[in-house]
Amino acid sequence: MTVRAAVAGASGYAGGELLRLLLAHPEVEIGALTGNSNAGQPLGALQPHLLPLADRVLEATTPDVLAGHDVVFLALPHGQSAPVAEQLGPDLLVIDVGADFRLKDAADWERFYGSAHAGTWPYGLPELPGARAALEGSKRVAVPGCYPTAVSLALFPAYAAALAEPEAVIVAASGTSGAGKAAKPHLLGSEVMGSMSPYGVGGGHRHTPEMIQNLSAAAGERVSVSFTPMLAPMPRGILATCSAKAKPGVTAETVRDAYAKAYADEPFVHLLPEGQWPATGSVVGSNAVQVQVAYDEATGRLIAVAAVDNLTKGTAGGAVQSMNIALGLDETTGLSTIGVAP
Amino acid sequence: MTVRAAVAGASGYAGGELLRLLLAHPEVEIGALTGNSNAGQPLGALQPHLLPLADRVLEATTPDVLAGHDVVFLALPHGQSAPVAEQLGPDLLVIDVGADFRLKDAADWERFYGSAHAGTWPYGLPELPGARAALEGSKRVAVPGCYPTAVSLALFPAYAAALAEPEAVIVAASGTSGAGKAAKPHLLGSEVMGSMSPYGVGGGHRHTPEMIQNLSAAAGERVSVSFTPMLAPMPRGILATCSAKAKPGVTAETVRDAYAKAYADEPFVHLLPEGQWPATGSVVGSNAVQVQVAYDEATGRLIAVAAVDNLTKGTAGGAVQSMNIALGLDETTGLSTIGVAP
Amino acid sequence: MTVRAAVAGASGYAGGELLRLLLAHPEVEIGALTGNSNAGQPLGALQPHLLPLADRVLEATTPDVLAGHDVVFLALPHGQSAPVAEQLGPDLLVIDVGADFRLKDAADWERFYGSAHAGTWPYGLPELPGARAALEGSKRVAVPGCYPTAVSLALFPAYAAALAEPEAVIVAASGTSGAGKAAKPHLLGSEVMGSMSPYGVGGGHRHTPEMIQNLSAAAGERVSVSFTPMLAPMPRGILATCSAKAKPGVTAETVRDAYAKAYADEPFVHLLPEGQWPATGSVVGSNAVQVQVAYDEATGRLIAVAAVDNLTKGTAGGAVQSMNIALGLDETTGLSTIGVAP
Amino acid sequence: MTVRAAVAGASGYAGGELLRLLLAHPEVEIGALTGNSNAGQPLGALQPHLLPLADRVLEATTPDVLAGHDVVFLALPHGQSAPVAEQLGPDLLVIDVGADFRLKDAADWERFYGSAHAGTWPYGLPELPGARAALEGSKRVAVPGCYPTAVSLALFPAYAAALAEPEAVIVAASGTSGAGKAAKPHLLGSEVMGSMSPYGVGGGHRHTPEMIQNLSAAAGERVSVSFTPMLAPMPRGILATCSAKAKPGVTAETVRDAYAKAYADEPFVHLLPEGQWPATGSVVGSNAVQVQVAYDEATGRLIAVAAVDNLTKGTAGGAVQSMNIALGLDETTGLSTIGVAP
Repeated sequence: MTVRAAVAGASGYAGGELLRLLLAHPEVEIGALTGNSNAGQPLGALQPHLLPLADRVLEATTPDVLAGHDVVFLALPHGQSAPVAEQLGPDLLVIDVGADFRLKDAADWERFYGSAHAGTWPYGLPELPGARAALEGSKRVAVPGCYPTAVSLALFPAYAAALAEPEAVIVAASGTSGAGKAAKPHLLGSEVMGSMSPYGVGGGHRHTPEMIQNLSAAAGERVSVSFTPMLAPMPRGILATCSAKAKPGVTAETVRDAYAKAYADEPFVHLLPEGQWPATGSVVGSNAVQVQVAYDEATGRLIAVAAVDNLTKGTAGGAVQSMNIALGLDETTGLSTIGVAP
Repeated sequence: MTVRAAVAGASGYAGGELLRLLLAHPEVEIGALTGNSNAGQPLGALQPHLLPLADRVLEATTPDVLAGHDVVFLALPHGQSAPVAEQLGPDLLVIDVGADFRLKDAADWERFYGSAHAGTWPYGLPELPGARAALEGSKRVAVPGCYPTAVSLALFPAYAAALAEPEAVIVAASGTSGAGKAAKPHLLGSEVMGSMSPYGVGGGHRHTPEMIQNLSAAAGERVSVSFTPMLAPMPRGILATCSAKAKPGVTAETVRDAYAKAYADEPFVHLLPEGQWPATGSVVGSNAVQVQVAYDEATGRLIAVAAVDNLTKGTAGGAVQSMNIALGLDETTGLSTIGVAP
Repeated sequence: MTVRAAVAGASGYAGGELLRLLLAHPEVEIGALTGNSNAGQPLGALQPHLLPLADRVLEATTPDVLAGHDVVFLALPHGQSAPVAEQLGPDLLVIDVGADFRLKDAADWERFYGSAHAGTWPYGLPELPGARAALEGSKRVAVPGCYPTAVSLALFPAYAAALAEPEAVIVAASGTSGAGKAAKPHLLGSEVMGSMSPYGVGGGHRHTPEMIQNLSAAAGERVSVSFTPMLAPMPRGILATCSAKAKPGVTAETVRDAYAKAYADEPFVHLLPEGQWPATGSVVGSNAVQVQVAYDEATGRLIAVAAVDNLTKGTAGGAVQSMNIALGLDETTGLSTIGVAP
Repeated sequence: MTVRAAVAGASGYAGGELLRLLLAHPEVEIGALTGNSNAGQPLGALQPHLLPLADRVLEATTPDVLAGHDVVFLALPHGQSAPVAEQLGPDLLVIDVGADFRLKDAADWERFYGSAHAGTWPYGLPELPGARAALEGSKRVAVPGCYPTAVSLALFPAYAAALAEPEAVIVAASGTSGAGKAAKPHLLGSEVMGSMSPYGVGGGHRHTPEMIQNLSAAAGERVSVSFTPMLAPMPRGILATCSAKAKPGVTAETVRDAYAKAYADEPFVHLLPEGQWPATGSVVGSNAVQVQVAYDEATGRLIAVAAVDNLTKGTAGGAVQSMNIALGLDETTGLSTIGVAP
């Protein structure tokens, strides 16, 4: 099978990571690359790490340019995918790397994103219960947010096995690439190196309702989420530290068993041996997720930690994994579980 | 007043920071510098940033060397301060920058440190209720741990004002200097740059009982603490993200008022304007603490964040601040609230 | 003496560092702070590390605002100091932290800066032969560029002692704060962390003629300079590696003697003991310069390395040092030789 | 073809990078992994980024363990490869990632490495004139040092085309992984983050004679090399800034032509478009080399800059590239020119 893929938003970090992965995908041929503000420029000037595409020139993001492919990845700011997707035919596989089709609850969408709800597409986190089946053969995929990817994989086994009370407390550190490539003063190297700072504290981050949606579905009851994101002095990686009160009767063994069972057959999620904890440095550039869990008897809390590369499993790798499933390819095609370390 | 100060453990990070601050202290004259494994070496080879002391030679840590000063700072690994302190006269001000005299509960000490309890000295976190009075005129001071400094200042106003339920969840990132200067593979630059990882998860970190002690004292009831520390890719700084369920009736205003009142007259703790969040980069090299607090209505949780420099306010700055109080000097003498940024 | 100081450009990195140093200066009282694009904002929102000035509000940069002080620091982009300075009275001490008055050769200025030459002021690198005398009592000071500071201090003793051939090869790494606070994509944390890259290669950097001017003056003959700057993944610091063919008869001893003599009485320049090499981390936040020099017999080259903090000795510290001299204060007042490390 | 490969020294950085690449190599099956001090431990505890090998256990480095493979990579400290290699049969392909067989001149070896010269093997930098032919079918390969890889590729086209005088000045920054995984205080994250420092200044670095050997061979005359390495605050990457006086008659065009011709058919060396300069961040994890060159008329110097990943093209990638040639595989098999950025 040769899959012709177009990438809209090829000059940004998500777009660049998609291209890095697609170049290594044995079944994919890279078609049109678009980027509105950079249309006309060679990719080599914008993504100098993608040597094989250095001479490719960016086009404008129009339906005409994107049609005629087998799959179109939309790596656009939220709110911009929906209008483009509308003009793409129903037989084309469209994968929205942005936020437009993630949330089921229109009110949540409107409250957190401030615009009309565009709809809901099959959700590209295949490890969640039922998600893989919904992706098979689908022509539309909503790629999860980077934080919800890490947090959902850290906590859903606990909720699916009814081990945790429905109040999760999450503190997650992200590398700066999660904030995108638009130049803003607080994202300057001078500002971020040597410093850690939280943002969107108190429930304001847009990924909060997405976490609630995923964990509530796993739990079969409404899970509340206290989410505090932090900017960390590194380009890539999310480390999500998640905890919740354990339900009565839970022990370290029941917790470990639930996680071992949930991830026994997952190709990308690796439950670490007891005593070894995730490090974002170990998953850089890889689609792997490192997970570890502990039960703290003194507080009665279950603590789960996940490390992902926000651009790979957290964005572009998750998108490619979902594409593989949607197209009936082996789910792991073109994806690696090997990090670039140190 | 001229205060002659000796520093035991002058070759380590805490010792180096003490000397940096003492060099800038108008009332202090630096006396003996000791460092057992480096005895005989010039400080310039070990602490090349302390130019004025480059030619000073380290001595062995013996009572004879330390006696004859007005104040002795013990910047030694835990367990090593107590035997040294025993041999120092009662009229000498002894400030233990290590852990030996922090905990009141002997059982806690034994469980977390694995040795016999040495005792309890007045606790060098003057901002805590009653702490300042206990330090005045004292000849013995136990400097708090770096994490407990950040966490206690983030949360005690909430507990002192009875605003929070007694179950705190704390996730804190620390710069690598907190792990000391002993060469260990996981602390190599190659390992820590570009990576975040937790450690001591599930209640194992030695600073946990110290946080419980401080918060419980403020609350007037036993506070449980779920504490997860993380190693962050930066040399200095602690960012502590702390949360707890708010007690019934709490509002954003009551929370803010409690913090504003608690810190109105504190020279080193700065409650940031609403909407501005702490960044560790802003307090590098300074004794300042940046604090911010929010009330998340959706989860009913109060979220407090503090940023400190782990070596300054979190260790050596706290020690000098306590020395000032113990000696009857102005508390802020020789200490700065200005960070070295960017 | 109380010196009232105004800072124009208080929201940038040079302005922030000036304020950090002036706050610690015992003879200075901080007056007006200006910043055109940020006028009306509190400094706390722009420079959160300067706690004592958090509530000060920025004004517009006008002659009226700046007049009525004893000293005015102009921390403005090149080309903007000259028009402001023209409107400030001759009795006011004006210190240009920008480039406008550094170059003596009008043709050089025009070629490298693309505008009309404004003139030349006494040059604020007191360690250069004759520079200190020219600064005493002066009402105008041109603060050197950050790279020329490091490079001139690395090499002038060799040229002043006629030890080196007049062709210098210089490769210098700078922290990102040298590129300023304006948000540009290539300065994003995501781009600079984990990467080193050169820029302005082949003689194009504006600091090149300034180095030539300084080294030629020391040598008494025209010195050519091949200068390659690099952006390094750190916020602060310049490491300048400089070399030139040694003149006939030069030995390791003659080289070391020349440097030892040149810096014997300099309060801020520290010739390291033989075998110890400068590290930028040792001078962060300090006005110290670490210098080391070697003679490589195999190539016949003299290699000199200097480390400075680009914002302190390389900009704001050099400015304050020059102010002290101009005002007749002790040259070291308010300045430190102690770095903030690690 | 299935190639069974053993890796001696699998717990270090070079060994880990070899395994990362070999896992992605379609013709290689990974055999024995050895590591003396870590023998008996699972690789997952030592190289947590290599998930597919997490359960493999390290063995001792003995001839018995290594025999029975098609290729053996020796990623051992210098001086340790030769004794092991001696005991491996002549039909086994042995690739020394260490230094033992790089230098032709026994006196150079003894002076710089302090032990008896073991011999010289075909040199694994295929881009050098004649090197590829010597590697074809060879059963022994000496992988170049990381700095000599970058420097030789930056400068050999100039020397091969007789464009440069035989005195090269080289300043190169390396990421910390180049210093290996042994824990030393000056390599701690606390020490290296935020700091740059030179080492081995004045001709002392062991890679100097290797550069001289390569450049002299290209030039057909003895080339002297002034080499200053620097430790940079990043885990990976070498940026080599190299310059030499241009020979009479050289112009920017002749320089560019020589480089364009030299690298026209090289799969891994990319001469950047004019005006674009190499960045180490663009080649992280890739076998690509970014090269740029300029002619500075004012100084008459030719300045060439190369960026490589010290662990990939500079070590393990170069080793795999050489293995491919030695075995008659396509030279690019299993190797990528795509960096992991940002």
